[in-house]
Amino acid sequence: MKLLYPTSLVIDEKSLEGFGVSLHSYNPKETIPENLIDAEFLVTWANSAQCLKDAAQRMRNVKWIQSLAAGPNDVLAAGFPSSVVVTTGSGLHDHTVAEHAVGLLLNACRRFFEMRDYQVQSKWPGHLGGPQPDRPKGKFTSLRGANVLIWGFGNIAKTLTPHLVSLGANVRGLARSAGVRNGVEVYGEDEIPELFSQTDALVMILPGSSATRHVINEKTLKLLPNHAWIINVGRGTSIDEDALVKALEDGVIGGAALDVFEKEPLPESSPLYKAPNCIISPHAAGGRPQECEALIAHNLRRFLAGQELKNVISTT
Amino acid sequence: MKLLYPTSLVIDEKSLEGFGVSLHSYNPKETIPENLIDAEFLVTWANSAQCLKDAAQRMRNVKWIQSLAAGPNDVLAAGFPSSVVVTTGSGLHDHTVAEHAVGLLLNACRRFFEMRDYQVQSKWPGHLGGPQPDRPKGKFTSLRGANVLIWGFGNIAKTLTPHLVSLGANVRGLARSAGVRNGVEVYGEDEIPELFSQTDALVMILPGSSATRHVINEKTLKLLPNHAWIINVGRGTSIDEDALVKALEDGVIGGAALDVFEKEPLPESSPLYKAPNCIISPHAAGGRPQECEALIAHNLRRFLAGQELKNVISTT
Ligand SMILES: NC(=O)c1ccc[n+]([C@@H]2O[C@H](COP(=O)([O-])OP(=O)(O)OC[C@H]3O[C@@H](n4cnc5c(N)ncnc54)[C@H](OP(=O)(O)O)[C@@H]3O)[C@@H](O)[C@H]2O)c1
Ligand SMILES: NC(=O)c1ccc[n+]([C@@H]2O[C@H](COP(=O)([O-])OP(=O)(O)OC[C@H]3O[C@@H](n4cnc5c(N)ncnc54)[C@H](OP(=O)(O)O)[C@@H]3O)[C@@H](O)[C@H]2O)c1
Repeated sequence: MKLLYPTSLVIDEKSLEGFGVSLHSYNPKETIPENLIDAEFLVTWANSAQCLKDAAQRMRNVKWIQSLAAGPNDVLAAGFPSSVVVTTGSGLHDHTVAEHAVGLLLNACRRFFEMRDYQVQSKWPGHLGGPQPDRPKGKFTSLRGANVLIWGFGNIAKTLTPHLVSLGANVRGLARSAGVRNGVEVYGEDEIPELFSQTDALVMILPGSSATRHVINEKTLKLLPNHAWIINVGRGTSIDEDALVKALEDGVIGGAALDVFEKEPLPESSPLYKAPNCIISPHAAGGRPQECEALIAHNLRRFLAGQELKNVISTT
Repeated sequence: MKLLYPTSLVIDEKSLEGFGVSLHSYNPKETIPENLIDAEFLVTWANSAQCLKDAAQRMRNVKWIQSLAAGPNDVLAAGFPSSVVVTTGSGLHDHTVAEHAVGLLLNACRRFFEMRDYQVQSKWPGHLGGPQPDRPKGKFTSLRGANVLIWGFGNIAKTLTPHLVSLGANVRGLARSAGVRNGVEVYGEDEIPELFSQTDALVMILPGSSATRHVINEKTLKLLPNHAWIINVGRGTSIDEDALVKALEDGVIGGAALDVFEKEPLPESSPLYKAPNCIISPHAAGGRPQECEALIAHNLRRFLAGQELKNVISTT
C-alpha cells in the first residue's frame, strides 16, 4: 500500500514509518505520476485545483484523503467519489489562526490600522493617544471587559478563547448545538438576536458550506450594536460582502477585520479595500500546518485497524 | 486636611471617604485656586507642566503627591522640594499597556502594518498570506516559540508575561537585579550580550531616568540578531533614535514598534515615520488609569498611619 505526501511543506517521513505502508512524496502542483497513481492514501496541501481534479479522475484505488487544511473545500470540489473518506486538518491551525485572530482584534480596538494611515504621512494621530477615557460605553477600545462572541466553536475557537479570557474578555460561543464546551457557554442559533445585541466583537470561525453561506447579511448586521466589530478568520462565504460594505459605510457596525473573502485574492475592484474601519488581511491566519505528522500517523493507524478516522468531514 | 483630585478622569469620591480628610476636585489644566492651595495631599493626572510648576511654588503644605502615571516624569520635573513624597501610579496601567504591547508584537510578527500599505492601494499582499513556511529560522513570524526579552521587569512586565507565555513565547526578563520574579528568570545587565544574541523580540518597559537614557544605542543594537524587533512601551529616552533609524535602514535589526519617543508628539521631521519596518503608536498604550481609587485610599491610609507608602519613587 502507498501513501503520497506533498512536497509543499516539510514532512518528517520517519514519523510515518512502521505501518508497512510505502511512503512517497509528490509535487502537488503537478499531476500524480503514473507509478504512484495506484496509491490508497493521499495527503494534500496547497494542491492546484487542476491537479486535484486530475487525481479524482485517475486515482482509482484511493480510499482516504487527509487534507492538511482545516477547511478542505478544494478537495471537496475536486470530484472524488463519495466512497473516498476525506479527513480535515482541523487542529493543525489552531495556534496560528488563534494568534492571528488576537492580532486582528487588537488591531481593531487599538486602531493600529488608523495609526498607520497617519504614520505614512509623517503625522502624529494625537486623538488616538495620550490621556483618554477608560473603555467608554458604546466603543470597542479594549478586550478587557469586552463581550466577544465566537461563531463556529470548534478547535480554533477552543484555542483562541483562553487568550481572550486572560486579556479580560467575556467570551461566549455560537454553534449548531448549545452546551458548555471547554468551559465556555455555547449557544444555539435561536439565541442570535439576544446574543448579537450584547456583542462588542463577533469572531467568525465557521467552515465554508452551503449552511454557513451569507449568515452575516443585511438582517443579521442590524442585530449588532453600532460599535461592534466583526472579525472573520473562517471562510469568506459566510459574509455577504455587499451588505457588509454598506453596513460599514452607514455606520451600522463599528468595523470589520477580514482574513477571508468570497473571492481570493480580493479583486482590486472590491469596495472593501476602501470601506471605513475595514482591515484586510490576505488569508494569512493559518497557511502553515503545525505538527501534521501526528495526525497523519494517527489516522493511518486507525484506517489500517478498521477504526473510525479523526476529523472525518461532515458533508452538511 | 485636604486632598485634591483632578477632574481629568472620573474618580469615585465615595471610595476615598472615611479618613476625616476633605476631598476637593481641581482642574489640572489650571493653577490651583487660592482656597485649596494649603492642601496636604495632591493627586495628579494629565496636569499641564506650567500648572505643576506653579503648584510646586505655591503649595507650601503639600506632603505627598500621588501621581496616577506609572512614570511621573512631569511631577519630578516640576520642582517640588525633595521633602515631598512622590508615589507613582505603577499598577494602574498594567492591563492597558500589556494589551497594547501584545498588539504591537502581533502587528510586528503578523505584519499588519505592511498589509495596510497594500490595502490603501486596493492591492492584495499575496506574499504575506496563503501557504507559507512555518516559523522559518531567522524570521520573527509568530510569538509561538519566539524568544521574548523584557527589559524593565516591573508591574507591567508581570502582567504582560502570562499572555506571551500562553501564546507560546519563551519569556525572560532583564533588570538591575537578577532572580526569579513571578516565575520568570530575570537577568542582570552583565548578561546583555548573551541574552540579546538569542532574542527575537525585545520589549522595553523601562522608566525614564538618567540611568536608562539611550541604553539602546549603536552598540547594543548590534548585539541583536538581524531579524529581531524592538517594542518600546516604556519611555522614549531609553532609545537613541538616530542610532535606531540607522539600524532599521541598514537592516541591523528586523524592526521597531514604538509607543514612546524622545520628543512627543514625534515631530513631522523625524525619519522614524518613514523608516523601514517601523510602527509608530502615539503614546497610546496606557493613558487611562484603572481602579485608581484603591491605590489612593491605600496610600492615604498609610500616610495617616505613619506607614511607608506604596510606589514611592526611586530617585535613581
Ligand atoms: N483563515 C485561515 O487561514 C484559516 C485557517 C484554518 C481554518 N480556517 C477556517 O476555520 C474553520 C474552522 O476551523 P476549525 O479547525 O475550528 O474547525 P472545527 O473544529 O471543525 O469547528 C468548526 C465549528 O463550526 C461549527 N459549525 C459548523 N457548521 C456550522 C453551521 N452551519 N452553523 C453554525 N456552526 C457551525 C461547528 O460546531 P457544531 O458542529 O456544534 O455546529 C464547529 O464548532 C475551517 O473550516 C476553515 O474554513 C481558516
Ligand atoms: N506607554 C505608555 O503609555 C506607558 C504607560 C505606563 C507606563 N509606562 C512606562 O513604563 C514604565 C514601567 O512601568 P511599571 O509600572 O512596570 O514600573 P515598575 O513596576 O516600577 O517597574 C519598572 C522596572 O524597571 C526596572 N528598572 C528601573 N530602572 C532600571 C534601570 N536603570 N535599568 C534596568 N532596569 C531598571 C525595575 O527593576 P529593578 O528595580 O529590579 O531594576 C523595574 O522592574 C514606567 O516608568 C513608564 O515610564 C508607559
